[in-house]
Amino acid sequence: MIDIDLVMQDLKKGIAEIIDFQRIEGLIKDYYKNGKHFYIKAGFDPTAPDLHLGHTVVLNKMAFLQRHGGIVQFLIGDFTAKIGDPTGKSVTRKVLDDETIAKNAKTYKEQVFKILDESKTEVMFNSAWLSKLGADGLIALSSTFNVARMLERDDFTKRYKNETPIAISEFLYPLLQGYDSVAMKCDIEMGGTDQKFNLLMGRTLQRTYNVGKEQGVIMMPLLVGLDGVNKMSKSLGNYIGVTDEPNDMFAKTLSVSDDLMWVWYELLSDLTALEIEELKAGVAKGELHPKKIKENLALEITARFHGNDAAKAAKDEFDRVHSKNELPSDMSEFEIKADEFWIVEALSYCKLCASNGEARRHIKANAVSVNQTKIGDEQLKLTKGEYILQIGKRLYAKLKVI
Amino acid sequence: MIDIDLVMQDLKKGIAEIIDFQRIEGLIKDYYKNGKHFYIKAGFDPTAPDLHLGHTVVLNKMAFLQRHGGIVQFLIGDFTAKIGDPTGKSVTRKVLDDETIAKNAKTYKEQVFKILDESKTEVMFNSAWLSKLGADGLIALSSTFNVARMLERDDFTKRYKNETPIAISEFLYPLLQGYDSVAMKCDIEMGGTDQKFNLLMGRTLQRTYNVGKEQGVIMMPLLVGLDGVNKMSKSLGNYIGVTDEPNDMFAKTLSVSDDLMWVWYELLSDLTALEIEELKAGVAKGELHPKKIKENLALEITARFHGNDAAKAAKDEFDRVHSKNELPSDMSEFEIKADEFWIVEALSYCKLCASNGEARRHIKANAVSVNQTKIGDEQLKLTKGEYILQIGKRLYAKLKVI
Repeated sequence: MIDIDLVMQDLKKGIAEIIDFQRIEGLIKDYYKNGKHFYIKAGFDPTAPDLHLGHTVVLNKMAFLQRHGGIVQFLIGDFTAKIGDPTGKSVTRKVLDDETIAKNAKTYKEQVFKILDESKTEVMFNSAWLSKLGADGLIALSSTFNVARMLERDDFTKRYKNETPIAISEFLYPLLQGYDSVAMKCDIEMGGTDQKFNLLMGRTLQRTYNVGKEQGVIMMPLLVGLDGVNKMSKSLGNYIGVTDEPNDMFAKTLSVSDDLMWVWYELLSDLTALEIEELKAGVAKGELHPKKIKENLALEITARFHGNDAAKAAKDEFDRVHSKNELPSDMSEFEIKADEFWIVEALSYCKLCASNGEARRHIKANAVSVNQTKIGDEQLKLTKGEYILQIGKRLYAKLKVI
Repeated sequence: MIDIDLVMQDLKKGIAEIIDFQRIEGLIKDYYKNGKHFYIKAGFDPTAPDLHLGHTVVLNKMAFLQRHGGIVQFLIGDFTAKIGDPTGKSVTRKVLDDETIAKNAKTYKEQVFKILDESKTEVMFNSAWLSKLGADGLIALSSTFNVARMLERDDFTKRYKNETPIAISEFLYPLLQGYDSVAMKCDIEMGGTDQKFNLLMGRTLQRTYNVGKEQGVIMMPLLVGLDGVNKMSKSLGNYIGVTDEPNDMFAKTLSVSDDLMWVWYELLSDLTALEIEELKAGVAKGELHPKKIKENLALEITARFHGNDAAKAAKDEFDRVHSKNELPSDMSEFEIKADEFWIVEALSYCKLCASNGEARRHIKANAVSVNQTKIGDEQLKLTKGEYILQIGKRLYAKLKVI
């Protein structure tokens, strides 16, 4: 006999906010009593198919719900991605053709099915219902919501105050996302806390259109990235991509602070709330060492995307390099034709950091080595030859200047 | 040889504002030089097919342009009239079926072809292109315009400040109206001054969509109604409907003040600017009597909708009644079953005024007679019997209380 209270306790692990907890509890109870499945919507933008661990926070919670009766409706938002801009001026919206969307969707699936149970997932494309909506349907839809309330959305409020233009179409996207919930008849929608307005829109429109249910909403916090400060994002460079190599994934996870480690446990680990409490207690009593626990987290995350063997190999490699101060065996290699190559550009070029600015900061922080010797001069030029570049203890690359 | 300067002078007669006068002058010149026609768009809402003289101000100017090369594109806005409200809550938008729209369009045509030249008019329905637009086309369209600029429209600004809800769909209507100009490729759009924002939208969108022309805009002032104060409108009761009986039309026109008469000459008469100036000069010199000139205006307006004979008959009838203090021969007759009937309600009931409030004001102003005797008591009850009710000198009705 399943202990529903325990399930609900684990459901709450790490979440930021739940709307209509009772309804969600009812869905899970109904599954265990009558075998009735419930539907969880999660939307993905097909323009950027590279997921990082920040995205997987929501996926992990969905996987949890799949184990308790949930069917995931994995929604690819292909409709708006296909819309052109008649002025041809907008660079913000990249128009995708069907082929690119299909390719991106395939990449998504490859990535998410490392976490989600494919047999309990339905992949959907919102063009199926939105292209049938018509201009008249869209006008009717937009008649149900008013301008002042739309402007109350945090980002719109700020942009309106700062006189940053908001295209009228941007008022339509939240309505379309909400209308997806009408068409999909989902029971729960999930997303990040930054999506609250849009998530509630689905609930509102299900009521407006008399769907006969009003979706519960589960919001997950934004995952703090490797820097321990900002939310994980590709543009900040503080991320672990789900397609990162096992060695990178393992090493980067080990680099987070002990405090952040507990947050990551809550948001990224499959351990139950109870098990995490026990780990914390163990550390508090001095019975467990935080480094060991962080290693386990790194193993769990790496294994999720690359399997147990690769995770173990990554750990062995890490130990080999760092305990014996050896160089890693599989450094990325780069080559450039130049008489001389500026160290700052070289670090970016070898993908050790995201920008020249970041490279400079690492040099200033005395974290950069060339051929295992720390350098302090950010004006350093590399002449023709072979170099091992290194940032901190874990990021290496081999560069040939030819 | 036509004198283009004179045509342009008459074009300017009575108008409130012209955008791109040069372009409009160029169109007329091109017609006289090369016989090339140009296209004038005027949109009508198919929900309310009863026109009054206020509407004809724009129609008169279009008829003028038809005489100088213009083809009128008479646009019935059937598309939005067909859109439902999914909530079923809105009472502001009445959804019309195709049959009602066709019926209203027919009524419109009957009314406008009293003024417009049917052989130089194309009737169009915007559903022809708007229903093909699709939700994607509408989103693309709405991406070309921003929220802040839309909120700058006078009425939106006021409503937003007063926290009166603005449905998001209301932001789409001006865009759709502008898109009509894209599809219709019109050269000129006409409307009242209250339409300025929407008229300029058509010009903007023709540029955005690279139509290859940017419509000129001619704005006509709002016609002041019979009360001499407010714009003519059905709800204020200060109007002359284009389907009003000849006698009413003639008598009501005679009731306007001498000042308002000159405004009506500019906006409603076919006299040229020069001819009107001559009339004014004649009055100033004491050679012409304003009453005679007002009679001519009343004859011209009545003849426009009912023909010359009917107009003359209306004048004769008016003279008969007012010079000899006789009752008119064709009073409307009403009947009601009641033991007693309050005079205020009786005046509304007999359609002599639009509301009880108006009836009270007339009684207070000592303008109401019953059986040719002035009454001052607004509490008067009519018992069973037959009555002649009268407001001022020209409004009569026969009422039987049975």
